[in-house]
Formats: sequence, structure tokens, C-alpha cells
Amino acid sequence: MAQYGFLGLGIMGAPMAANLIRAGHEVTVWNRTAGKCDPLVAMGANRAATAREVVAASDITFAMLADPAAVEAIVLDPNGVLEGISAGKGYVDMSTVDETTSRWVSEVVTEAGGRFLEAPVSGTKMPAEDGTLIILAAGDEGLYGEAAPLLDIMGKKRFFLGEVGNGARMKLIVNMIMGGMMTSFCEGLALGAKGGLESADILDVLAAGALANPMFAGKGPLMAKGDFTPAFPLKHMQKDLRLAMALGDNLVQYLPSAAAANEAFIRARAAGLADEDFCAVYKIFTD
Amino acid sequence: MAQYGFLGLGIMGAPMAANLIRAGHEVTVWNRTAGKCDPLVAMGANRAATAREVVAASDITFAMLADPAAVEAIVLDPNGVLEGISAGKGYVDMSTVDETTSRWVSEVVTEAGGRFLEAPVSGTKMPAEDGTLIILAAGDEGLYGEAAPLLDIMGKKRFFLGEVGNGARMKLIVNMIMGGMMTSFCEGLALGAKGGLESADILDVLAAGALANPMFAGKGPLMAKGDFTPAFPLKHMQKDLRLAMALGDNLVQYLPSAAAANEAFIRARAAGLADEDFCAVYKIFTD
Amino acid sequence: MAQYGFLGLGIMGAPMAANLIRAGHEVTVWNRTAGKCDPLVAMGANRAATAREVVAASDITFAMLADPAAVEAIVLDPNGVLEGISAGKGYVDMSTVDETTSRWVSEVVTEAGGRFLEAPVSGTKMPAEDGTLIILAAGDEGLYGEAAPLLDIMGKKRFFLGEVGNGARMKLIVNMIMGGMMTSFCEGLALGAKGGLESADILDVLAAGALANPMFAGKGPLMAKGDFTPAFPLKHMQKDLRLAMALGDNLVQYLPSAAAANEAFIRARAAGLADEDFCAVYKIFTD
Amino acid sequence: MAQYGFLGLGIMGAPMAANLIRAGHEVTVWNRTAGKCDPLVAMGANRAATAREVVAASDITFAMLADPAAVEAIVLDPNGVLEGISAGKGYVDMSTVDETTSRWVSEVVTEAGGRFLEAPVSGTKMPAEDGTLIILAAGDEGLYGEAAPLLDIMGKKRFFLGEVGNGARMKLIVNMIMGGMMTSFCEGLALGAKGGLESADILDVLAAGALANPMFAGKGPLMAKGDFTPAFPLKHMQKDLRLAMALGDNLVQYLPSAAAANEAFIRARAAGLADEDFCAVYKIFTD
Repeated sequence: MAQYGFLGLGIMGAPMAANLIRAGHEVTVWNRTAGKCDPLVAMGANRAATAREVVAASDITFAMLADPAAVEAIVLDPNGVLEGISAGKGYVDMSTVDETTSRWVSEVVTEAGGRFLEAPVSGTKMPAEDGTLIILAAGDEGLYGEAAPLLDIMGKKRFFLGEVGNGARMKLIVNMIMGGMMTSFCEGLALGAKGGLESADILDVLAAGALANPMFAGKGPLMAKGDFTPAFPLKHMQKDLRLAMALGDNLVQYLPSAAAANEAFIRARAAGLADEDFCAVYKIFTD
Repeated sequence: MAQYGFLGLGIMGAPMAANLIRAGHEVTVWNRTAGKCDPLVAMGANRAATAREVVAASDITFAMLADPAAVEAIVLDPNGVLEGISAGKGYVDMSTVDETTSRWVSEVVTEAGGRFLEAPVSGTKMPAEDGTLIILAAGDEGLYGEAAPLLDIMGKKRFFLGEVGNGARMKLIVNMIMGGMMTSFCEGLALGAKGGLESADILDVLAAGALANPMFAGKGPLMAKGDFTPAFPLKHMQKDLRLAMALGDNLVQYLPSAAAANEAFIRARAAGLADEDFCAVYKIFTD
Repeated sequence: MAQYGFLGLGIMGAPMAANLIRAGHEVTVWNRTAGKCDPLVAMGANRAATAREVVAASDITFAMLADPAAVEAIVLDPNGVLEGISAGKGYVDMSTVDETTSRWVSEVVTEAGGRFLEAPVSGTKMPAEDGTLIILAAGDEGLYGEAAPLLDIMGKKRFFLGEVGNGARMKLIVNMIMGGMMTSFCEGLALGAKGGLESADILDVLAAGALANPMFAGKGPLMAKGDFTPAFPLKHMQKDLRLAMALGDNLVQYLPSAAAANEAFIRARAAGLADEDFCAVYKIFTD
Repeated sequence: MAQYGFLGLGIMGAPMAANLIRAGHEVTVWNRTAGKCDPLVAMGANRAATAREVVAASDITFAMLADPAAVEAIVLDPNGVLEGISAGKGYVDMSTVDETTSRWVSEVVTEAGGRFLEAPVSGTKMPAEDGTLIILAAGDEGLYGEAAPLLDIMGKKRFFLGEVGNGARMKLIVNMIMGGMMTSFCEGLALGAKGGLESADILDVLAAGALANPMFAGKGPLMAKGDFTPAFPLKHMQKDLRLAMALGDNLVQYLPSAAAANEAFIRARAAGLADEDFCAVYKIFTD
């Protein structure tokens, strides 16, 4: 029976790994804070002491980590990914990182004999739990084929976008649009509130028209009642905007709206909202 | 049998009036450029020589005009609305105007003995043709009740939002969000294009996720193939952004994303795109 | 001996009128809040009960009012400017208003037989006191010549810019640049403060280089010590930005930096800083 | 007699080195494109084949390079700075780089036994030629004292700002303000031009008031006549804005005006203006 690994059991990784286990797969897990493994072990996962052990024990290892620094650290650690990799093993990094980081991981994993797939996802906590993520894969197409059944457990839709870096770029672009849409949404709600319109009416009108989308429908009522429990932490949204701005600079693409949105999210971080849900950026338009 | 009037037979007004006629109502029409009446007369409408005649002949008159100046002109014209109004007649202005204009029309119509409803719509050419507009009514609630069956022919959803001005505000807020979303969408597509991603892939990824919305789905493929045939002319989008910015200034609401979007649309006007569809703002991100 | 009038004795108008009196001119004054006339009367001014009386008693009347609404009100008031104007009298409006207002005043004053000069100023409280304003005149060139000796008492430099409206435009453009420079200055100081640099060092470095200017030199030390006593109230700065944005929209000129600055000043108004000096916008970058 | 070195003979470095030579100092020079050494050798400089030779031959070596990549390359090159450094030698890097790069150079030079001073400058081609740069030094205070007489030849004013990184930060902050001021200036000139005002009048009005500064006075007439010969290339201005934005993100400082200015400069790069003077950003406001 094929063996799978999962590294990184945070808000996203834990339910993704849980879905693999629930589907009957053999999964070995590891997390920097070891306690986060407990619920998954209770579900039937194998516990490993290091990332190296996970990779060594698995045909394909999935990773879902917080940021480029964590991705690099887990690869290079003396007990990390590279130490466990060997010919033919697959490493599927589902973290959201910049393309430079992704290309570097691809290079070092490939040099060590492994195969690499970047597969960042679109979707936050709830889709991770429901197995309805959108998966943006790029890199080794053979590995993509082998991982497909597992990606289909974690997500409802998957794309293969070509060479390593394209998945990262697609993710950033989608999240950049998300940041811009959220900022526009907040400004509209804030302007309506000052102008004597009911939030519920605004949400109903938006829901009825050409702008209707699951994010407005899902976040709007939470924002209206002031529930900012983190599904996608604000600091991660701003990190993605930062990376998108850097990509724009690099490709010489002018992005004035995204720049304005990015500044709003930076201001929200300065206001102490980094660990709330990204829709908490609403507060800076109403303070 | 109740008599209805319709003033303004442009991109929006013509199909809206046509839907009323098709539903079997008696409708008298007028347009500044008289030739635009011909197709409606061919469908069974009565032709009037002036706006005054339309109002005089109708129980309820609907108007769909280009901007505040046109709305004011048609009301004050020696052969205009005020000359035809009398006790009990209803005037339903469906144009998108600022709230000051709307309140002024309400006042003068009411002083002349008429009843007033503002009823701006959300939706452009296609929904006007399909009778699937979103109607944002405010003002005389009795008139709203009487006009409801006709509003239900022109639209798929209607809201009564209270006092005159609230419909205008809601419309501006929705269109302000629309302008911001379109700008974010354009920036994402432009960044993707520079970064080697296929537009079709970006549209598919967006369609699969939490940002999916009818506007992206409808405009995206047109933008990708360079079809900017006007459904909602760019200059009208920018006009709405201008009015929304003025509302923000007036209510002391900070709107940095909308400001950035507004500047993008102004730049698009300077680039000669005023009469193309508002999604032609895409061109300024790719020139 | 020539008779002069002065309408509007606020932060700017009072010292400007005082300079005319000190220079030995006969000046009749009026202010909406009559008590503001007292110090000038003590200096030798004549007191009038209405604006009409001032204009009727004077060869040339100067006005320095808060905004377009005040400018219109004083002209149209039953005891206002138009009631006092007659053939040959000069009316010099030094208020900062939009060009539409200025053109309207020009028209009604001219129709009443008077001559009109718009003469907005660049410079705030201190230059008004020191007689070192920059005066941006446009309109009746003959009146400009007659008023020149008095303009030279109130200002250190004057320009004649052609037809009515050009003075207003020039003023808005200068103030728009001022708003943008102030915002950039605040962002630099705030970034420096977060980055461990001394404000005094930043001010010294700026003072030594190509960016050195009287505004940074004058406002910088006040901002560093938190003194925001109004010389040019923040709400007036934002009003000028609003008018400049409207001019840009009207002339189809794209102004993204000014838009960002305008939003910063709107946010400052929302934060309760409307009546502090305009450099108090600094607070929104450091809160 | 003390021996000095100079690495990097571009627009800035060449005149700076020339000033040292003209003042009678013994200077050994090197440049990646060797031909750039010729004019300085003709003035009396010694020519070295590598950066290593320059450092080995000099008590204090000055460097003026294009960007962080060039700064790193020259240090690490097998024939580079580190190979020539030894106990007590001074290395003064006058390039504009981010603080991370500067701290890294400090570390490796210090580890190799050398002493390090960062000393970025404010001022472009003309001040470099005239010896009127503003020098923003930080790092080894002893080296600062020894280098002072040479800094005083290259500059008219110098600051010692404490620990390594503070010079870089100060430089970025000054240049960020410069980018913002230039953008505001361009918007004002463009708005004036569309509004029928003469550029010369706008420049005169600015020169007379509180915003008067050497940059407007120097660049304004060049911009008005369309002379964009590079003194400070536009791509370098945008690089500094990019670095300033990154510093803001890192320090969680909200910088909306600088973000708008940065986007304007990115758009200017996309328009093919990278190698013109930074004031060529004017063209994107008038196209």
C-alpha cells in the first residue's frame, strides 16, 4: 500500500491531512509543535519525530507550511526533507510561497533525486475541512498524475499549469484579486453604514447581482456582526499582497489598486489585526 | 386600463420599455432623439412629441436617462415632466444619479402634486434585455406598491430602501464596488499575462473558487478576446465612481481603493476609451 | 483719498486687513461675527454693519472668506456685495474657491456694473501677518493695476494669470502639490521614526539637499514636537484637494498621488483633526 | 602619503573620484568596464586590474556601485574586495543599497579584519560633479573621522547616523520623499497644462512660495522643454521606492502616497523610460 506523508498541521494542513486519513490512506505526520499531531494520530496517522523520517517513510510527502522561511527551513534542516529524499520520491509543496522559493525547492529536491510538484491552494479553513480547495499544481507532470487521487480528496478542482513557478504565480494573482475585492467590499460596506444603509440590505443587493460571489456571501454576515475568527489570517493575506507586489515590480506590471489594498492591510497589521481573519481589514475603514 | 410612460430609450431604457410593451402594457414613449422611438412604436407603443405629453397621458411614468444633467433638463424643460404632472401621477426615475439630484426631483414632483419613486438599477444591457435587473427603490411607498408589477417585468429582484436618496446611495455603493472589483480583476489578468499564465486558466481558477461571480464570468472571456462592445460605457462607470467619491468626501469616509480605481478609469477616459465598455479599463494595464 | 473695504476677518483676513491699515489706508471692515472687527477698528478701520455698506463705501473691496458657500452667500445676501456694487467699483476676491464659483462671482459683479479680480493667495497665517503672501490674480487687468499697491502690502509677489478662473486653478494646483508633499513628508518622518532615526536628523538631511523647502523647514519641527496649532486648517487643505480632484476629473487628468493624499486627509478629518493645522495629517501615519 | 581607492566609475562615481584626484590625493581606480578608468588615469589616478588590487593598495577604499547585486558581487568576487582586505583597512560603501545588504557587507568586511562605513549620498550627477553631495554615514566612527576630509571633498554636508543600516535607511527615506514630491510635481504641471496655465507661470509661483525647492527649480525647466537626459536614472528612483516600500512592510508602516508614486514609476518603466532621468515620469501623466 502506498505510503503518504504530511508536514505542517496548522489551520490548513490539519484538516487536509485528516481528509487523507479519513479516505483510508496511510499517512505519516509531523509538525514543528509536536502536539498538533495528536488528533491525527488518534485518527490513525503514524507519528514521525522529524520531517526526514516522514519523507523517508513515504512515497509522496505533502507539505503545508506558513511561509517561505518555514518552507526553506524544513527542507534544509539536518533532520529535514532533503535528508529523507531519495530517487523517485515525490515532494508536493502546497504552501503559498513566492516562485523563487518554489523554484529553489524544486531544484534541491530534484538534485537529490526526488520529484517535485508545487501545488498551492486557493481556499481557506472551511474548504480545507470540506475537501473543496482549488489546487494550482505545476512541476513534475508524472508526479501530478500519481498525486491526483489524493489532490481530489483535498480539493474539488485541480489545475496543472506547466513549469514550477506557475502555480505560485497563479496563487498570488488569485489572492491579489481577493485582497482587492475585500478592500472594495469593506469600503462599500463602510460607506453604506455612514450613509444610513443597512448592512443586510447591501449584502442582499450584492447577492442578487453581477458581483455576487461566495466570499462576499460568506464573510459579509460575519463582518456585519463583528466576528473576525481567523480562517485566513490577515497577516497571510498581506504577505500574499507583498509577494504579488514584488512579482509586479519584477515583471514591470503597474498595479495601483493592489498597492492601495496592500497599504490597507499593512495599516491593519499596525492596528494589531495581524492574527484576526483577513476580513478584519474592515475595521480600519470604520475606526 | 392603466397607462404608462417611458422617457429615455438608450442602451438601457429601450429594452426596459420593450419588456413592458411585450408584457401587454399600454406604454407611451419619448426620447430626445425621436428616431429611437420607432422600434418601440413598431411593437405597439404610443409615440409622444414631448416628455410633458408622456407624463400627461400616463398614470405612472418611468424615466431612464444618462446623467444628472439629463434628469434635471427633462424635469424643467418647458415641455418637460413638471408641465405634465398633476395630482396623483407617479414619476419613477430609474436613472443613476447622485442623491442631491434625486432629492431635488422628489421635491419638485411632489410640490407639483405628483408622487415620486427613485428606482436606480443594478445591471447593464443584458439584464435590461432579459428583465433581470436589480431595482433599488426608495421614496413613496404607495407608488412602489403600484409600480411593483411593472418593476417585476423589468427586474428579477427589487428592494425598497426607505427615504429618497437611499436608492441612489445603494446604487453608487454597488457600482463603486464594481469599479474596484473590475480594476482588481484587470490587474490580476495583466499580471498573469506578463507572467506567462493563460487568461483562460486564470478565468477557470477564479470560476472555481470563492471569488467566482457573474461579472468575471461574463466580462473575462470578452476581455481576453478584446471585445469591448459597450454594455455599460466606461464613462458611466467613471461617473459613478466620481459620485461615490463625492459621497465619501461628504460623509467623511476614507476610500483609498475606490480612489485608485477612479484614477484608473479617468486615465482610461484620457486614453480615448470613454465610449467602450467599462471593462476596457483593462487596456490601460496592458499598454 | 481712495477708500478700501475688507470682508472676512478670519485667520487670514484679519492680518491682511491690518497690514492695509498699518500702511495708512482707509479701510472699512465687516465680518459675519461682528466682534472680529474690534481689533481692526482699534487700529483705525471703519466699521460697517453689512457687506453692502462696505462695498458702497469703497472704491475697491477685498474679500477673504472660508469657502465657496461663504463667497456665494456674501454676494447674494440682501445686505450683500451685489446690493452695494455700482459702476466702476472693484471687487477683489482673495478667497480660495473653485473656478466655477469664481466665474459666477465675476459674472454677477460685472453685470451689476462692477469690475472683478480673483486673487487667491498662496501662504497661510504667518505670511498673511508678514505681508509675504503670493497673490494669484486673474480677471480685470485694469483693476489689477489699481489694486497692485495694496496687493504689494499684503504679498511679496503677485502674478496676473489672464482670464477669471486661472487664479483659482493655479491656487488649487499649488495646494494640490502642497498636500502631496505634506503626505510624502509625513510618510518619510513616520518611516524614519519606526526605523530608529531621529526626526531632527531627517529634517537636517532634508534641509541640506535638493528637497529643502520652507514648508518642511517650518512645519517639520512643529510636527516633531506635536504642535498642530492651526495656521492652515486641515479641513481647508482637504477642501482644496477635493476641488483639485474635481478639476482633474473635469479636465480628464489622471492624478493618482493627489488621490492618495486626498484620502489621507479625509481619514484625518474622520479622526477628528479637521480644525488642527493641516500638518496634523501626520498623526494618521503614526497612530 | 595615504593611499585611496575608488571602485565604480559610473555617472556618480567618476566625478566623485575625479574630485578626490583634483584635490591632490593618490587614488587607485577600478571599474567593471575598464575603459571608464581612462579619463581618471589621464588625471593622475593609478589603474588597477581588479577590485582586490585596489583594496590591497589603499588605506581606505570608496565604492559607488549601481545596486545591491553589484555591491555583493564586488565583495565576493575571487578578485574582489574581501580578497584585498586586511587588518585596519577601511571600506566606505557610498552606493545606495538596502540595509540588509549594507549590514552583510559590514559583517564580512569586519570579519576579514577591515573597518566598514556605509555612506550613501543624497544628490545626483551635478552635485557629484560639484562636490556638493549630502553624505549619510553610519558604522565605524573612527573610520568616519579618518574619511571625513575626503567626504568633505565629495560632499558639502555629512552626517554620522550611528549603527550600520541607518545611513541606508536615511537615504531610502529621503529618496522616497523625493519620489513622492516628483510625482506630485508632475501631476500639478500636467493638470496646469490641461487647464491652460503656462508651465513657466506654475514654476514661478512655486518658486515664490513655501514649496520652493532646488529639485523643482532644477528639474522644472528641463521637464517643460522635454529634456530628460539622465542625471538620476528613473530605474534607480524606482529601485529606491521599491526598497522603501519593503522597509515600510518590514516595519509595518503604512505608506499609501509612496505606494502610488512607486506604481507611477513602475508604469514609467513599462513605458520604456527606465534609462531616462527620473523626472521623465512626467510623461506618463501627459500621454
